[in-house]
Amino acid sequence: MKRNIKLTIEYDGTNYCGWQIQPNVPTIQGTIRDALIRITKIDISVTGAGRTDAGVHASGQVAHFHTDATMPAPAFQKALNALLPSDITIANAEEVDESFHARYSAISRVYRYTILNRAYPSALMRNFVYFVPRHLDVSKMAAMCEVVVGTRDFSSFQRTGSGRKNPVCSVSEARCWQEGDLVYVQIEADSFLRGMVRAFVGTLLKIVQKSDAITRFTDILNARNRSVAGASAPAQGLCLTRVNY
Amino acid sequence: MKRNIKLTIEYDGTNYCGWQIQPNVPTIQGTIRDALIRITKIDISVTGAGRTDAGVHASGQVAHFHTDATMPAPAFQKALNALLPSDITIANAEEVDESFHARYSAISRVYRYTILNRAYPSALMRNFVYFVPRHLDVSKMAAMCEVVVGTRDFSSFQRTGSGRKNPVCSVSEARCWQEGDLVYVQIEADSFLRGMVRAFVGTLLKIVQKSDAITRFTDILNARNRSVAGASAPAQGLCLTRVNY
Repeated sequence: MKRNIKLTIEYDGTNYCGWQIQPNVPTIQGTIRDALIRITKIDISVTGAGRTDAGVHASGQVAHFHTDATMPAPAFQKALNALLPSDITIANAEEVDESFHARYSAISRVYRYTILNRAYPSALMRNFVYFVPRHLDVSKMAAMCEVVVGTRDFSSFQRTGSGRKNPVCSVSEARCWQEGDLVYVQIEADSFLRGMVRAFVGTLLKIVQKSDAITRFTDILNARNRSVAGASAPAQGLCLTRVNY
Repeated sequence: MKRNIKLTIEYDGTNYCGWQIQPNVPTIQGTIRDALIRITKIDISVTGAGRTDAGVHASGQVAHFHTDATMPAPAFQKALNALLPSDITIANAEEVDESFHARYSAISRVYRYTILNRAYPSALMRNFVYFVPRHLDVSKMAAMCEVVVGTRDFSSFQRTGSGRKNPVCSVSEARCWQEGDLVYVQIEADSFLRGMVRAFVGTLLKIVQKSDAITRFTDILNARNRSVAGASAPAQGLCLTRVNY
């Protein structure tokens, strides 16, 4: 029986074509796999809790891999952090039960979207926020967040052509709040459809200035039709912050 | 009489060889000057409040330039932000009295140094913090900060060969505090010697674990000799946060 190692991973997705391995382009999964192969000298596969798109970040992505190597889990963390580029860091490595699966064992994932809401963009935060200069009614955005809490069909926020058969997700928390110039939208759900958070945030931003925004939002959600919702908010504002098991 | 325009500037210094114009390398001052020449079609010089070194950031650098252009100051901000690369942003532009000089009119500058104090580095913050994994006694660092408040000879923290004749600076505030994994060192002074904050922070980090750290620190300060102080902390942790007039 191989050992099962769970990794908690932080990454700056700016320079990657997303989590999932693809040929001939830099990916987070591929970069970690290559580093593990250099450490163990054996081909290995790395399974993540969720696929993040190109330019999306993570402060708490989780992955697992199976290995015959006898190296203790903390030594894997050290070896990986020594080999990985500085835009991917291993926050934790621990040995887990053979039944643990980063994707299927996950009870929920938490994504946070960050909007910079002020008159001018930010040089320092440019890769981690979506710059929106116009006034935002954060309390109305928070009210629309409340509408999505529960078990619902989120087809209106599923990327066209992504083809997941079951578009029902259970959102346990959806919040929007402001801290200084930053507006955060945070959603916790058992699972997410492809592009769901970015489509949701894009829709909030599209309709928040309407007087009947909450009614409109409910109509969009109930339509189960991506074409009625707003354009996706850009990737760099999104971060996978936590996966719960 | 030419108009005098004051700029407040935020920049990510990662990809620049510092503030000051030098031939054949990217600098903040040179990049802003080039953008102003494109806007006004006339050669122009831009004067900053302080020279930041390669890799050092700013959230509140200040500069001024003189121009015959009739464009209102807010239009300069818009035009500059449209032309400048995304790692330099103009936070404010305003017309000021002809006597205003970004460097000579400044009463004080505030620099903040950020240390990431946890077991593993950060992919997301890597360009903006200095990663120090060992335990830091923040209260002792704060006590050493108190030692430098006042008007003193800071030769022990002046870069060798920088040759400023008067090494006396008046430090009005020097603080160290912790927020989660981050330890901040913030200093406000009428002026700074070259490399002063990084030498100061490097010295704090070198001696903080000693039982007699505060006595040692006082001896280093009084020695007026750069060779007795610690190595400079790296550039990426430093940010010029404010210039007061």
